[in-house]
Amino acid sequence: MVIKYQPIGYIYTTCKTLNDMPIQPAGGKTLKGEIEILQEYAEGLSDLDGFSHIFLLYHFHRSHNFKLRVIPFLDDNFHGVFATRAPKRPNHIGLSLVALDKIVGNKLYISGIDILNETPLLDIKPFIPDFDYRKNVRTGWYNSNLSKVKKYRSDSRFEAQ
Amino acid sequence: MVIKYQPIGYIYTTCKTLNDMPIQPAGGKTLKGEIEILQEYAEGLSDLDGFSHIFLLYHFHRSHNFKLRVIPFLDDNFHGVFATRAPKRPNHIGLSLVALDKIVGNKLYISGIDILNETPLLDIKPFIPDFDYRKNVRTGWYNSNLSKVKKYRSDSRFEAQ
Repeated sequence: MVIKYQPIGYIYTTCKTLNDMPIQPAGGKTLKGEIEILQEYAEGLSDLDGFSHIFLLYHFHRSHNFKLRVIPFLDDNFHGVFATRAPKRPNHIGLSLVALDKIVGNKLYISGIDILNETPLLDIKPFIPDFDYRKNVRTGWYNSNLSKVKKYRSDSRFEAQ
Repeated sequence: MVIKYQPIGYIYTTCKTLNDMPIQPAGGKTLKGEIEILQEYAEGLSDLDGFSHIFLLYHFHRSHNFKLRVIPFLDDNFHGVFATRAPKRPNHIGLSLVALDKIVGNKLYISGIDILNETPLLDIKPFIPDFDYRKNVRTGWYNSNLSKVKKYRSDSRFEAQ
């Protein structure tokens, strides 16, 4: 079974390489970017401006293979790739929560991003804490590494090989 | 540009039709389900059991077209599809946060689900509030409708046509 998607637009950021990117939006709060939605889908943005935050689902266009065990940026040990947010996944789909600053026509101005320039965008979901948040969660191996997320930057370990 | 993905597994639930499903996991807290990951990807589950909640990214396999404006289950007005979580999107990708109860081999036991039986799974991301949550958010048209999410059920309005 093959599932086919097409970009609904592209994400433009100042991150040109996999080196020195923020790790997750929480590490890139000041980074701003733009999304250009293809004109044919622009009508689907109606009322999105009522939401302060959105999930972006996008294609890791620079990842061309996958590993089942990876050492993520925030740790020194191998973990199953599904227990990480690393890009070298069987399906190269990324998920990031970003702030939606404003919408002008088919352009979205966003901040708090950790996304490579020219990334193909697959979908936008409004962030709704009642749907997307739970209290009292366990966060496995991340627990002892969370303080690093704001100061660590990415390196080229997930560069296409 | 066409992006191709393949299922990493399938989600099995008691929801056999689009009628009478919970709307979002928050409305289906007691509903349980199972995920069977294809054996070739099972190694990627390592250490996922340290996380209490996971995001599932999946393919709305019963949606075969899209609308740019939809009336979502929780409202009586049209909104741009990207301002909703409705399945009739240009790319039929669903996103749900569910509780991960346990993992046995290549099987994940989950609860709090709003997903149709036999849904193809595309990816799993560990839920990490530092990445996936923001305080003080605006939630647009949902704001006045949030109380409905726990009592409303779906109907067939997004059934494949």
